[in-house]
Amino acid sequence: MKKLINTPENVVKEALEGMAAAHSDLIRVDVEQQIVVRKDAPVQGKVGVISGGGSGHEPMHGGFVGRGMLDAACPGAVFTSPVPDQMLEATRAVNGGAGVLHIVKNYTGDILNFEMAAELAQAEGIEVESVVTNDDVAVQDSLYTAGRRGVGVTVLLEKIVGGLAETGAPLSQVAELARKVNNQGRSMGMALTSCTVPAAGKPTFELGDDEMEIGIGIHGEPGRRRVKLAPADEITEMLANPIIEDLGLKSGEQVLAFVNGMGGTPLIELYIVYHALNRILKGKNVSIARNLVGSYITSLEMAGCSITLVRLDDELIKYWDAPVHTPALRWGV
Amino acid sequence: MKKLINTPENVVKEALEGMAAAHSDLIRVDVEQQIVVRKDAPVQGKVGVISGGGSGHEPMHGGFVGRGMLDAACPGAVFTSPVPDQMLEATRAVNGGAGVLHIVKNYTGDILNFEMAAELAQAEGIEVESVVTNDDVAVQDSLYTAGRRGVGVTVLLEKIVGGLAETGAPLSQVAELARKVNNQGRSMGMALTSCTVPAAGKPTFELGDDEMEIGIGIHGEPGRRRVKLAPADEITEMLANPIIEDLGLKSGEQVLAFVNGMGGTPLIELYIVYHALNRILKGKNVSIARNLVGSYITSLEMAGCSITLVRLDDELIKYWDAPVHTPALRWGV
Repeated sequence: MKKLINTPENVVKEALEGMAAAHSDLIRVDVEQQIVVRKDAPVQGKVGVISGGGSGHEPMHGGFVGRGMLDAACPGAVFTSPVPDQMLEATRAVNGGAGVLHIVKNYTGDILNFEMAAELAQAEGIEVESVVTNDDVAVQDSLYTAGRRGVGVTVLLEKIVGGLAETGAPLSQVAELARKVNNQGRSMGMALTSCTVPAAGKPTFELGDDEMEIGIGIHGEPGRRRVKLAPADEITEMLANPIIEDLGLKSGEQVLAFVNGMGGTPLIELYIVYHALNRILKGKNVSIARNLVGSYITSLEMAGCSITLVRLDDELIKYWDAPVHTPALRWGV
Repeated sequence: MKKLINTPENVVKEALEGMAAAHSDLIRVDVEQQIVVRKDAPVQGKVGVISGGGSGHEPMHGGFVGRGMLDAACPGAVFTSPVPDQMLEATRAVNGGAGVLHIVKNYTGDILNFEMAAELAQAEGIEVESVVTNDDVAVQDSLYTAGRRGVGVTVLLEKIVGGLAETGAPLSQVAELARKVNNQGRSMGMALTSCTVPAAGKPTFELGDDEMEIGIGIHGEPGRRRVKLAPADEITEMLANPIIEDLGLKSGEQVLAFVNGMGGTPLIELYIVYHALNRILKGKNVSIARNLVGSYITSLEMAGCSITLVRLDDELIKYWDAPVHTPALRWGV
């Protein structure tokens, strides 16, 4: 196992120490409890927006804490759900009296633990709404999931919903926008290589030198099929077409296109995929009105990429464009 | 070779097509000539700042073109110097009458070609100054270099110098600041794995499963020594101590600390290195006043990292903090 780590047990806490030191202007980090909180939280009268999930997907979610995006994140162990206590603590920390939105990726552990945390918070008088992301068109059920998995849309949703929450909108409206973004977005990913969970010490799965996995999950869960390597243009077709079809994108529509690296894939390759995606969408007279290209929802050092498309309207564009200031995403400020 | 590409010959041009499509608000790209130019260039009365070098180090340099950083970049083939014609074309494109600064990393091919381009531009009446970066403390001479190699400082220098150029400062002052940043900065890198140049189709070098290379160059050039794998804390010591010593950092000083990923290393590991670096510097009473953590000067999909430290003063902080709006770095706007 070749990694820049000290011991597998300390990976998450030491990375959180690094984040705390690097971004003390934006966030407070409780390293023991594993909670990342926006520095000025709780913001009175503002809906608190939190998310969380297993570590190993950095910068998601801790890198998205800050003005205009998340109020808190609670990272679990690598590829392991955080516990209800963490989520409850994060909920308390960001409650400014206007309630708290839980953004939950559809994995069984995350769902159960966030449900419990929401109940505990509600018992303390904190209003909580939960929104589940389930945008992965690759497979219906999967290793850790009933229904579709929550993947790339989560990143875009956190940005858009964070933009609305910043305006002081009420919880019901913030939750409604979150559901809308999830409904209007779809994703699919692929892997050229596996990743290695530090505590396991060996690759999560094996792929031949001439093989790739189409429809992979962000924990290395099996996808739709294992096939021979193909050129980037064909891979992009394999990912984009099921998304376009499932979303029912029509000529004249516009989208937010997100080409995401899985952690071990360099930017030069992501731009090649973006070029192919842009051509495919142009061919269907769908225009990319906004885009994001980079590694934002990763699977440790896995090589590969995912594509996410979100159907845009004026409301979504407005809150996508709104100022954001977090460790990983920043504009307008 | 597992890569998201179509054919090795088209890697650079297709990635440039992707960049052009994704960032048409910021840059114009001449894909044939392989030149990335700031959208509003030439800016009248402003010194044009350009850089270039082999591709495979993305986002450097094309991702740094935009307001407050570079006016143009000319990427060569992967790990291959651009040609004088490209550099001359870029120089013409950004000449707003105040002269042009060439930022050149110290590799023999880059040096020779930029010298020729500068002579050709001067023959056309364009004032040109050149500044060479040579911040890598790992080795004195190397595979493609006489003297020290230019590495991570180049990224930070382009940001700081771009900030000054934006104010309308004259060429002599812009060049002087560039030399100052180079003088005040040092870097060192390491690799856990090799990378594969697409046209070669096989790894640039071989490393055993239990080995790493300390002092690696950004093209996989040999470093100081090949040693057994070590914990991240020890690796950070191996990189940071020679930098601190060479720079003569003293108690009470402050630095800009840059922990850079080589392309295949995920962010979670870079934060572990940052945590270790922060502790080492604290132990010497050197404070990190500014930082950058991420993959900005890469070697394709190489796993590994580099550390760069730049001694800061008020002038450098001022221009580091100045607004920047490029595909890869953005703040204040």
